[in-house]
Amino acid sequence: MSRVEVIPLPGVPEVKKGDDLGKLVLEAAERNHVTLLDGDVVVVKHKIVSKSEGRVIELSGVAPSPEAIRLADREGKDPRLVELILREAVRVVREGHGVIITQTRHGFVCANSGIDQSNVGMGFAALLPLDPDDSARKLRATLESATGKALAVVVSDTFGRPWRKGQTDVAIGCSGIAPLVKYAGKTDSYGYKLRVTEPAVIDEIAGAAELAIGKLNGIPCAIVRGVEYTRGEGGIGELIMPSDRDLFR
Amino acid sequence: MSRVEVIPLPGVPEVKKGDDLGKLVLEAAERNHVTLLDGDVVVVKHKIVSKSEGRVIELSGVAPSPEAIRLADREGKDPRLVELILREAVRVVREGHGVIITQTRHGFVCANSGIDQSNVGMGFAALLPLDPDDSARKLRATLESATGKALAVVVSDTFGRPWRKGQTDVAIGCSGIAPLVKYAGKTDSYGYKLRVTEPAVIDEIAGAAELAIGKLNGIPCAIVRGVEYTRGEGGIGELIMPSDRDLFR
Repeated sequence: MSRVEVIPLPGVPEVKKGDDLGKLVLEAAERNHVTLLDGDVVVVKHKIVSKSEGRVIELSGVAPSPEAIRLADREGKDPRLVELILREAVRVVREGHGVIITQTRHGFVCANSGIDQSNVGMGFAALLPLDPDDSARKLRATLESATGKALAVVVSDTFGRPWRKGQTDVAIGCSGIAPLVKYAGKTDSYGYKLRVTEPAVIDEIAGAAELAIGKLNGIPCAIVRGVEYTRGEGGIGELIMPSDRDLFR
Repeated sequence: MSRVEVIPLPGVPEVKKGDDLGKLVLEAAERNHVTLLDGDVVVVKHKIVSKSEGRVIELSGVAPSPEAIRLADREGKDPRLVELILREAVRVVREGHGVIITQTRHGFVCANSGIDQSNVGMGFAALLPLDPDDSARKLRATLESATGKALAVVVSDTFGRPWRKGQTDVAIGCSGIAPLVKYAGKTDSYGYKLRVTEPAVIDEIAGAAELAIGKLNGIPCAIVRGVEYTRGEGGIGELIMPSDRDLFR
């Protein structure tokens, strides 16, 4: 196996609605003297995707429903934020301890339907992209067309998880990379047949990118280089547990 | 922020009970012409830790209880394996679809109490180390004493997760590194105060190591270099969600 390298791309400017993310990423790469290579995985935090797609909402314009007001009251949250959380959700999975965990329309189970008030400006909230796979696909097309390289794109977000404190960055969309590495049916060096081993490589890539990006320095993008992944046109749906196999509804 | 690099260390020989892991890691580093640097995080898969600590069990010597036999029958598993799963567990969290999810004595919630039959030989099963933080501490002491460098150690395992298919490598023990990066109370570039942001950096490091290690090539160790982490003497307990805050019991 070869080394894996995570290369942060500082210097992406403030992203506004309608901005061409591919152009901004390419300019940041150039400024950092980074040349994209075949196989590179470009990881972008969803926040800049959401901003470029106009998925940032001013809270003062949100009228909370009675349900949102009640839920906000129980969990000590801004009712306008809770209104957005409910609008983005197909169901509330759990609430308690000031936490609202929902399932989003994409199928993600996460806090606050993935809505986040950090790094968007006071009084604003960023929603998840409507179709993060499509966002990844478009970004990849721009980057591949400009560089002539075969690339993959992962859109990442920061999710908590049950039973473990803290958060890790995970993938919420991808293009050009198979989300899961399929080892099932292969045998280890002892001849033991692996049955369920399917590393969620796009989640590990998103987490690796976070290690080089951090949260406060405004770096929304990194390149993960050297991962031996399977190219694929599938999307994040391959990673969503179907409800009939979900032991934690 | 600087680049992060994941350097796999192939060539660690088959580990046996009583082996000095530190010596094996140092020899592998030398063979791969890798010099440990201040701040390097050495990630070892728990399997070699378990092997060196004699936590590998021959299934033919395990007598399953009636409870294990019933559970094994319901979920289509080897009753001797289920007996071990129950012995290592403080409770069964969920069962269904051929999956047994337990909470281990360490506090981890994972499939099969973390017991795994891959890469240990036919008819054998590897249990988790009894005290993975202690395992990490001892390995770190050996490595630091031999190199004179300030190092961290993460012991990793492969866990599934609810709602998302596939698995990621996460930390089950650590030494020399604070498990969580505490951003709470800090402000982003807009002045917005982060409230709950605590990246579980040791989990992201474990996942990044897996990207360079894979599952089939018998590489049980990698160095993760360039992560800006906080040194700390805390352990994996800092990452376990207390039961009174657990929304998914």
